[in-house]
Amino acid sequence: MQTKFKTLRSMIESGDLTFLMEAHNGLSAKIVEETGFQGIWASGLSISSALGVRDRNEASWTQILEVVEHMSDITNVPILMDGDTGFGDFNNVSRLVRKMCQRHIAGVCIEDKMFPKQNSFLGERQPLIPVEDFNAKIKAAKDAQLDPDFVFVARLEALISGHSLQEALDRAHAYREAGADAILVHSKKSDVSEVAEFCQAWTEDCPLVVVPTKYYKTPVNVFRDLGISTVIWANHNMRAAVTAMSDICQSIYDSQSLVEAESRVAPLERVFNLSGETEFSAYEKQLFEKSL
Amino acid sequence: MQTKFKTLRSMIESGDLTFLMEAHNGLSAKIVEETGFQGIWASGLSISSALGVRDRNEASWTQILEVVEHMSDITNVPILMDGDTGFGDFNNVSRLVRKMCQRHIAGVCIEDKMFPKQNSFLGERQPLIPVEDFNAKIKAAKDAQLDPDFVFVARLEALISGHSLQEALDRAHAYREAGADAILVHSKKSDVSEVAEFCQAWTEDCPLVVVPTKYYKTPVNVFRDLGISTVIWANHNMRAAVTAMSDICQSIYDSQSLVEAESRVAPLERVFNLSGETEFSAYEKQLFEKSL
Amino acid sequence: MQTKFKTLRSMIESGDLTFLMEAHNGLSAKIVEETGFQGIWASGLSISSALGVRDRNEASWTQILEVVEHMSDITNVPILMDGDTGFGDFNNVSRLVRKMCQRHIAGVCIEDKMFPKQNSFLGERQPLIPVEDFNAKIKAAKDAQLDPDFVFVARLEALISGHSLQEALDRAHAYREAGADAILVHSKKSDVSEVAEFCQAWTEDCPLVVVPTKYYKTPVNVFRDLGISTVIWANHNMRAAVTAMSDICQSIYDSQSLVEAESRVAPLERVFNLSGETEFSAYEKQLFEKSL
Amino acid sequence: MQTKFKTLRSMIESGDLTFLMEAHNGLSAKIVEETGFQGIWASGLSISSALGVRDRNEASWTQILEVVEHMSDITNVPILMDGDTGFGDFNNVSRLVRKMCQRHIAGVCIEDKMFPKQNSFLGERQPLIPVEDFNAKIKAAKDAQLDPDFVFVARLEALISGHSLQEALDRAHAYREAGADAILVHSKKSDVSEVAEFCQAWTEDCPLVVVPTKYYKTPVNVFRDLGISTVIWANHNMRAAVTAMSDICQSIYDSQSLVEAESRVAPLERVFNLSGETEFSAYEKQLFEKSL
Repeated sequence: MQTKFKTLRSMIESGDLTFLMEAHNGLSAKIVEETGFQGIWASGLSISSALGVRDRNEASWTQILEVVEHMSDITNVPILMDGDTGFGDFNNVSRLVRKMCQRHIAGVCIEDKMFPKQNSFLGERQPLIPVEDFNAKIKAAKDAQLDPDFVFVARLEALISGHSLQEALDRAHAYREAGADAILVHSKKSDVSEVAEFCQAWTEDCPLVVVPTKYYKTPVNVFRDLGISTVIWANHNMRAAVTAMSDICQSIYDSQSLVEAESRVAPLERVFNLSGETEFSAYEKQLFEKSL
Repeated sequence: MQTKFKTLRSMIESGDLTFLMEAHNGLSAKIVEETGFQGIWASGLSISSALGVRDRNEASWTQILEVVEHMSDITNVPILMDGDTGFGDFNNVSRLVRKMCQRHIAGVCIEDKMFPKQNSFLGERQPLIPVEDFNAKIKAAKDAQLDPDFVFVARLEALISGHSLQEALDRAHAYREAGADAILVHSKKSDVSEVAEFCQAWTEDCPLVVVPTKYYKTPVNVFRDLGISTVIWANHNMRAAVTAMSDICQSIYDSQSLVEAESRVAPLERVFNLSGETEFSAYEKQLFEKSL
Repeated sequence: MQTKFKTLRSMIESGDLTFLMEAHNGLSAKIVEETGFQGIWASGLSISSALGVRDRNEASWTQILEVVEHMSDITNVPILMDGDTGFGDFNNVSRLVRKMCQRHIAGVCIEDKMFPKQNSFLGERQPLIPVEDFNAKIKAAKDAQLDPDFVFVARLEALISGHSLQEALDRAHAYREAGADAILVHSKKSDVSEVAEFCQAWTEDCPLVVVPTKYYKTPVNVFRDLGISTVIWANHNMRAAVTAMSDICQSIYDSQSLVEAESRVAPLERVFNLSGETEFSAYEKQLFEKSL
Repeated sequence: MQTKFKTLRSMIESGDLTFLMEAHNGLSAKIVEETGFQGIWASGLSISSALGVRDRNEASWTQILEVVEHMSDITNVPILMDGDTGFGDFNNVSRLVRKMCQRHIAGVCIEDKMFPKQNSFLGERQPLIPVEDFNAKIKAAKDAQLDPDFVFVARLEALISGHSLQEALDRAHAYREAGADAILVHSKKSDVSEVAEFCQAWTEDCPLVVVPTKYYKTPVNVFRDLGISTVIWANHNMRAAVTAMSDICQSIYDSQSLVEAESRVAPLERVFNLSGETEFSAYEKQLFEKSL
């Protein structure tokens, strides 16, 4: 069977547009896979929000890793993990990548800002990390990987931080030279223009990844035409859950009853199926029959 | 300010019907509190399902505790934690309770089955633990509590496991004698009859807790009339999230677009508010102004 | 390079006597390797004692696993992990083994007692688990292993619990049939007689492992003559550390001075070397030179 | 009973010289307390070395916290925890302090360098953090503390990093103003001169703490005369364990025998006593007698 590493690499390097759907725990990861998505985006914002902490590296890197390990254990499609700014320096990135490979987490995306990070949609002109320090992270990650197909995505924060297109291109070039397998070009514009400019100016043989959370109205054919490799639907499972849980809480609170809620929530059988009860029962039966 | 321990105790011992709403991570806990619920049920089924493991003690007790710690950190209302069968014997219960008290988790509910547990709605006639062993757990919990108002709820599995009403009453009596602060009488009947019989036969001055997941059509006034103290809405946030995430995944997968999804998911601002970004910004501003 | 799994299997199946030396954290593991031992025994007693908890499954299985992960990360020789009674039932063993394989922990030793375990040297006639339940653990472990050379050692508690030689042999036979890769025959006699009897009666082609903590005066040639495969020096690093730390504490406390202590403790340079500072400096230098 | 927070505060603010002895896990912490020391230094170097990682924030802050939690659980004397540089910015310090207070860890020492830290005895002229950023950490810690007696020790790295006495004094003054409860003045000189100069120039009513690892020959009366409050014996348990474990490994490896080792290691009974087996047996007996 093909490793998750190879699968992720193939997807990102293929000519077809790949879609990664956000998940933030084992349950959502399973649903993403079940729906048919080829891969999973383990979003830092979603995971921290689900845990109940801010997207500011309040959870430790081992707590985040444990969440993604649970996600990887319950699914067969590859996961690209949001590694924020790498949880420290090149040495922390190195440890992270080894731990990820052991847990069959197929790739990491690291952004070129400082630790502790803050969400890119908050505030303005967040400082970037010096290029040589980010390059060290890339090289350390590639040196540390336990599988040759492990994917390192370098996330460019230059545009979203108000730097010039040229700065973004220069950094992207440096990151590619340092060993990045793909470049994620991030933007908080409400249209695709900024990203498009970058893509059109990008002439290197290196896959591009985008996160159209803010420019969500852009038809995917535009991404195809721009030669983009991979689109990340970045946080919509978590945000769908927020709405659904807020609504069901309000309904039950107001009505002091489950009657209305019952038809709007998944049956228990579905929950048991998602966590693998059917496989468990079959295996247990077989195991104890073998014992006789 | 009143401790969370005292608040939970007051609620459970009060004459008014108390409602505890399920949460399974910090995010859902925050939503439960925000809706106005007085307290939170940290459901074992929901937490394990959200993690992506089976409700069979696949996650370790420290992993579960960490989830509930995150829930407790982000909320001010008390949490009753589903402690399954106590994660071992009386000694494991003892450690658990000390760790819970340190984390301001106000109460625990332990059921009288064996470790590792399986969900009560699966299979038939799951074995019960000997009374003296369960009593040892209750006593160990009460000896270990760091706050006198910590609440121990003894969950009766006798009825759901096919034992007689008398067996259930005898066990409930023994558990109360051993120090339980409340009795949770569990049933998987689709009507309230079994629970009602128990309540009517229960003459002791000890609060009763119910979980009407299966007999969800029962109007809450029936619970009031039966003298029940507390109703647990046991897993509906998690089940609402399953439905919502399945739907949003399908929509995005089919349409290859976020356009339709955007209107159905919570705005990013709401997510940032739930995790406390507003308080953070205010605090950061004040902190650095103070520094000048 | 040969996997740690294959190395451990080769050692245990070889005709030469293999010695595994106890370690209980990364530091002691590194010292064991440095001394020249072929493999490491990750002792449950030592790990729990070092953590500061009782050898009664007070630490969760994920806490223990994390200790052994640290041990595995810092060494290249294989580790046989003391898995106590498996931290639950066959399903918990299954998860444990998958997690161990991911972390390159080469083998597990599970004993045929109940969860939560207590140390075999405490009390008398501790109850054994039914054979069919232990067999289920063995089979589940072998089904779950991610590497074909992962080693499952079945630890026989029959003799130490006061059962007959025949009971021990019958159980050992059943465990071998179920898939155990080796049998650890445990004894708390102060001489080797009980173990010798077992070895002489054991005719199957299956390696035997011993732990001569109590019959420590037995010369190793006796083990060779009995056809034993592997000897575990089970807890002597931890016990040496207890003595040394007690002594150094007393000396510093009494003298209110480090002068006498200084000559008795490892230099800081040695500590830095053990944790890999030399390699770090070389790597950092090379990394940033490459960046220029 | 006096809280651990109050005890640590009293010790540090008292006129008598206080000695804190290093520990790095529950076992060593227990031995420190047993010896008679008033308090424990949870050393970052020792804890990371014992785990098997470098003193460069390779372990996550939650992994370190868990170690210190185990140390706190098994002892009654207060612990001053080495918090390195605070594992991030003021916000990370804030979370750390809340978590520490929940676990009854009485105080934290934070140094004014950058994250990830490196050991102060490595390299030269490590960069210091800007004063206003360190002040923010101090203030955030004091705002976050759950107990008014929680102790914040600000560790001055100015001298050890090659800055002037005046810079050190200015920073110390600023830290005191920001809320630090004590100042740790660190030096890697092999004599006390540098520290003495600082102490003599320090006129504020604020306790001073020293770590004479390098100037270990200084008699403690010199510290008394300098008006120092607290002396930390910083890493000698870990270093004693390294020597003892290296020796015992060599002995057992060379002799293929436990005979010589047996007399040099603590008896198993002592190990069981340290982890609390005696208390366990008494409690278990009482618990089940009560059940009858």
